[in-house]
Amino acid sequence: MEGIPQHPKHTAELLQEILQRTQALPNDGAVANYIPALAEVDPEYLGIAVAELDGKVHIAGDAQMPFSIQSISKIFGLTLAMERVGDQLWNRVRMEPSGHAFNSIVQLEWEHGIPRNPFINAGAIVVADTLVSHYSASRTALTQFIRNLAQNPLIFVDEVVWESEREHGARNAALAYLMKSFNNIEANVDDVLDHYFYQCSISMSCVDLARSLSFLANRGVQPGTGEVICDPRSTRRINAMMSTSGMYDQSGEFAFTVGLPAKSGVGGGLVAVVPDYGVICAWSPKLNSFGNSYRGMFMIRQVAEELGLSVYS
Amino acid sequence: MEGIPQHPKHTAELLQEILQRTQALPNDGAVANYIPALAEVDPEYLGIAVAELDGKVHIAGDAQMPFSIQSISKIFGLTLAMERVGDQLWNRVRMEPSGHAFNSIVQLEWEHGIPRNPFINAGAIVVADTLVSHYSASRTALTQFIRNLAQNPLIFVDEVVWESEREHGARNAALAYLMKSFNNIEANVDDVLDHYFYQCSISMSCVDLARSLSFLANRGVQPGTGEVICDPRSTRRINAMMSTSGMYDQSGEFAFTVGLPAKSGVGGGLVAVVPDYGVICAWSPKLNSFGNSYRGMFMIRQVAEELGLSVYS
Amino acid sequence: MEGIPQHPKHTAELLQEILQRTQALPNDGAVANYIPALAEVDPEYLGIAVAELDGKVHIAGDAQMPFSIQSISKIFGLTLAMERVGDQLWNRVRMEPSGHAFNSIVQLEWEHGIPRNPFINAGAIVVADTLVSHYSASRTALTQFIRNLAQNPLIFVDEVVWESEREHGARNAALAYLMKSFNNIEANVDDVLDHYFYQCSISMSCVDLARSLSFLANRGVQPGTGEVICDPRSTRRINAMMSTSGMYDQSGEFAFTVGLPAKSGVGGGLVAVVPDYGVICAWSPKLNSFGNSYRGMFMIRQVAEELGLSVYS
Amino acid sequence: MEGIPQHPKHTAELLQEILQRTQALPNDGAVANYIPALAEVDPEYLGIAVAELDGKVHIAGDAQMPFSIQSISKIFGLTLAMERVGDQLWNRVRMEPSGHAFNSIVQLEWEHGIPRNPFINAGAIVVADTLVSHYSASRTALTQFIRNLAQNPLIFVDEVVWESEREHGARNAALAYLMKSFNNIEANVDDVLDHYFYQCSISMSCVDLARSLSFLANRGVQPGTGEVICDPRSTRRINAMMSTSGMYDQSGEFAFTVGLPAKSGVGGGLVAVVPDYGVICAWSPKLNSFGNSYRGMFMIRQVAEELGLSVYS
Repeated sequence: MEGIPQHPKHTAELLQEILQRTQALPNDGAVANYIPALAEVDPEYLGIAVAELDGKVHIAGDAQMPFSIQSISKIFGLTLAMERVGDQLWNRVRMEPSGHAFNSIVQLEWEHGIPRNPFINAGAIVVADTLVSHYSASRTALTQFIRNLAQNPLIFVDEVVWESEREHGARNAALAYLMKSFNNIEANVDDVLDHYFYQCSISMSCVDLARSLSFLANRGVQPGTGEVICDPRSTRRINAMMSTSGMYDQSGEFAFTVGLPAKSGVGGGLVAVVPDYGVICAWSPKLNSFGNSYRGMFMIRQVAEELGLSVYS
Repeated sequence: MEGIPQHPKHTAELLQEILQRTQALPNDGAVANYIPALAEVDPEYLGIAVAELDGKVHIAGDAQMPFSIQSISKIFGLTLAMERVGDQLWNRVRMEPSGHAFNSIVQLEWEHGIPRNPFINAGAIVVADTLVSHYSASRTALTQFIRNLAQNPLIFVDEVVWESEREHGARNAALAYLMKSFNNIEANVDDVLDHYFYQCSISMSCVDLARSLSFLANRGVQPGTGEVICDPRSTRRINAMMSTSGMYDQSGEFAFTVGLPAKSGVGGGLVAVVPDYGVICAWSPKLNSFGNSYRGMFMIRQVAEELGLSVYS
Repeated sequence: MEGIPQHPKHTAELLQEILQRTQALPNDGAVANYIPALAEVDPEYLGIAVAELDGKVHIAGDAQMPFSIQSISKIFGLTLAMERVGDQLWNRVRMEPSGHAFNSIVQLEWEHGIPRNPFINAGAIVVADTLVSHYSASRTALTQFIRNLAQNPLIFVDEVVWESEREHGARNAALAYLMKSFNNIEANVDDVLDHYFYQCSISMSCVDLARSLSFLANRGVQPGTGEVICDPRSTRRINAMMSTSGMYDQSGEFAFTVGLPAKSGVGGGLVAVVPDYGVICAWSPKLNSFGNSYRGMFMIRQVAEELGLSVYS
Repeated sequence: MEGIPQHPKHTAELLQEILQRTQALPNDGAVANYIPALAEVDPEYLGIAVAELDGKVHIAGDAQMPFSIQSISKIFGLTLAMERVGDQLWNRVRMEPSGHAFNSIVQLEWEHGIPRNPFINAGAIVVADTLVSHYSASRTALTQFIRNLAQNPLIFVDEVVWESEREHGARNAALAYLMKSFNNIEANVDDVLDHYFYQCSISMSCVDLARSLSFLANRGVQPGTGEVICDPRSTRRINAMMSTSGMYDQSGEFAFTVGLPAKSGVGGGLVAVVPDYGVICAWSPKLNSFGNSYRGMFMIRQVAEELGLSVYS
């Protein structure tokens, strides 16, 4: 990328145009149905927001409607843990793409309870364990961190989703107990899972997400407030892990076709970081077989192609 | 990255300094020993070259000594196949990181003979199959392609290495036959392996490699000659795959610590692409447990840090 | 086997001789150490008992000392569940050898939460689930079942072992939660695990075990009391599963070298069924890498060879 | 089993009755179609033979029609190799059930090229390697061995099947090359595969197979001729391995439901050894998903149940 992207029309108009192109496509895939609270979301929601580093936010569609951020919360948890725990975190979780589904337990057994990266469930549970162990009230700490990043005190946890996650959390409990058996969980497993399910249940809009993650495009400094969230080395590292592992077992394809650090959630949200430019967030509830938003990927790809945003030049 | 890197001293001096830092370290790891021809290489060789897009080449150490490029050849084979075969190549090989060792057969069976990406052995063998099938003389075509890229007609294949590869090629034969059993090899298996072993046996220097791969940093145009090697979409794709899969099962860590598209070979070579700036190539024969050059990684990381080169900003 | 084994000396003398041969060997292997209560057992214990169908019991060494029966309890749980639940049990657990370690979670994920057989941990946990679901007090029911079989009202659970199992039960919790996530656990996971850990913590002697399992050698009828424990088809089935899967991932080797249905426990106990003759039980705490008693296997093999007991003729 | 089975009617009549019961069932499953020569076999063939140790042979249906014995040949190869090579064979192949499909390559990689047992393809290829290495003309030696066992000089190899096996042998070539890469193949891979494909292509009838394998039920002595084929320890071992591994990944279920050492082939043949009584061979070309003959299994199970033949009592 050479400096600020050049484009012939205003970004807001471009987003509107892309939204219309997207609405013209068949709305393929399926809404996540492992918990009832997610399964009931209207599959027709469609929104996109772009937060630029100068503070401008462009939107189209349902960009201000809060949705369940699910795995996108892994970025917030990771950022907080990296600052709080430092490099010793990397003794307990690696930074390699997994080559397996996000909730696979196979690899975790082979690799003796050390998760491949912080964006698969097992890795995020280890991160949750560090937060539970290092904060007296880890859930509150995380909520405040996110509200501050988004400059939105109204961000909330959806209690129905949280309860539902707990009820259907057997697979994640299996991952946590397997890691415990390898001594890679320090706190009480129930407490760790409770934190993990809590952070998955946070509701945010495309605008909230694009704004709150802008420090990743700005070498650690939050554009609106000038606050230093982390050092530039940390943002490079987080962006690198999003690039190799942020889109589950479709990360390679996303790098190949789009070329931006990104993270998806099964609520249908998808954020992409454009270093030195800003953050894009798209939302559409229906997922493909990898667990990524079908129309969300389409929209982000369109923006990246139109604006020439790939980090791979 | 913001435009051309700014650095206080001349690149040549920096390389010299980094070379000295590297020589002061213990020379850890082990020379590849699966074939005698590689095992006999002097482990003290150490070289680095940086080819900038304006044509300048900076070097230090044994940067002009030819060595066995091994898996770095996968980039050349892939580029040629992408141009010749087009997008149908992606029906036969994917672009996902593998999460396994470079010569693993496990994943190939699970995934029905479709390799994870063109940089693991199985994927490169599929690419070799397409070259054998599309060219009347695929080995000659590849050699000419490389000589032209490097502007060096003296680039050659080491016949001793080639013969040695054939003699010790049982593991790669197993991969090829397994893919054949899934109908993912079209040509005769012996011919495909012969091409594959041939390309692994090409000898090039750091300077040759840095020069020849400069089109990857320059949106498909070879800087020296102005020749269009491929379109910018192809270079973005190749760089993306190098970023997620180029360093075997250490690719995530390399993205995390260095942040550049890269490819290594068991001959101890390592190339890294810096979009819009140039190509770095380092060489040191001793490998770590992932099959990557120990001191090669150290040198590239030093250059990237000193010059601030990560694509993740 | 042709009818009752013929042997030149009395069985009691033979056992004494074999005990001495065994004591002359180095006492290799290691006492199970995953819970402190087991790790503290004196590794020099060595006992053997043979219960013949006519009621005679021959012993040598520490044959009357109670020890932790651990996985041998899986036979009791299975027999009770087969009688109580009937053939629908086989919808939830298979009868195939696993080809993996006893506590592997890999295969369980591949095979969608259906364990390979009732003698690996996951399978025994499914069996425990059926007992918890079908009995108002499953632990009491099992204890009474075993006491009645052994005609020994003093058989007890070692509370220290039970508590220790619970404290170190993360791996088994992972198996249970993974099966829960595949809807193959009906009762509350904590209750199921509590039953499972309870049955593993029962203490019995070689004499107790040989006597209590005699119905397996006698087509379902308990020799001492004449009570019908199960039908002959059930004993054939249990013996078959012990033959293919009773010795963890060493079952094939045990069939090859000894040729008797057998089950081992990490407490160092080992029982072998000789159809139409009786049951042998050996005990020595040190285990080999598969989790089977080193000297226990040696003693059973000696008895089988001397008496010509293989079911494979 | 208590001595010679007692049954109310003559065995010949029983076989006739079972044949009729079988013909009344739907002929489920599918003929093996990986090679054309096998795919063309009439799926209606149905035959059974019982060879008793006193020399009587009872038959019903197409018991004298030769068919492709396929994997049943693994018993002949193994017997010959055990006699020729001795116990050092077990350094190169184990005797454990595999828990995987017969041609799986996954386990072979994990376990460093040592096959789980001689009845999966990889194990039989190792056995073939020992025969090729120890005999100047291994194919002739095997044919003579089988003709002598069956007392039938007309037993032949189907050249069309042999050629077809070679043409479609990529999967087996992959197994062989993978083992070669672990130094577990000594001879030339092509020669080993040629022997392996040859032995799979031998044609024999139910009568031939039941007669030729009678030594397995008779402690190593061939009943018709009195010739000592191997020692009793070897027959116990072969029977044990057939019991734990002879029916591919359905071996446990076969032990559970039938309880006899058995071996199947994808030609639809199935032999079962009844120690001290005789050998049963059934044939019906349609296979279930494990690669075992559907109606063959049904017939053998009927015979075993009617005559009370399980080795597990």
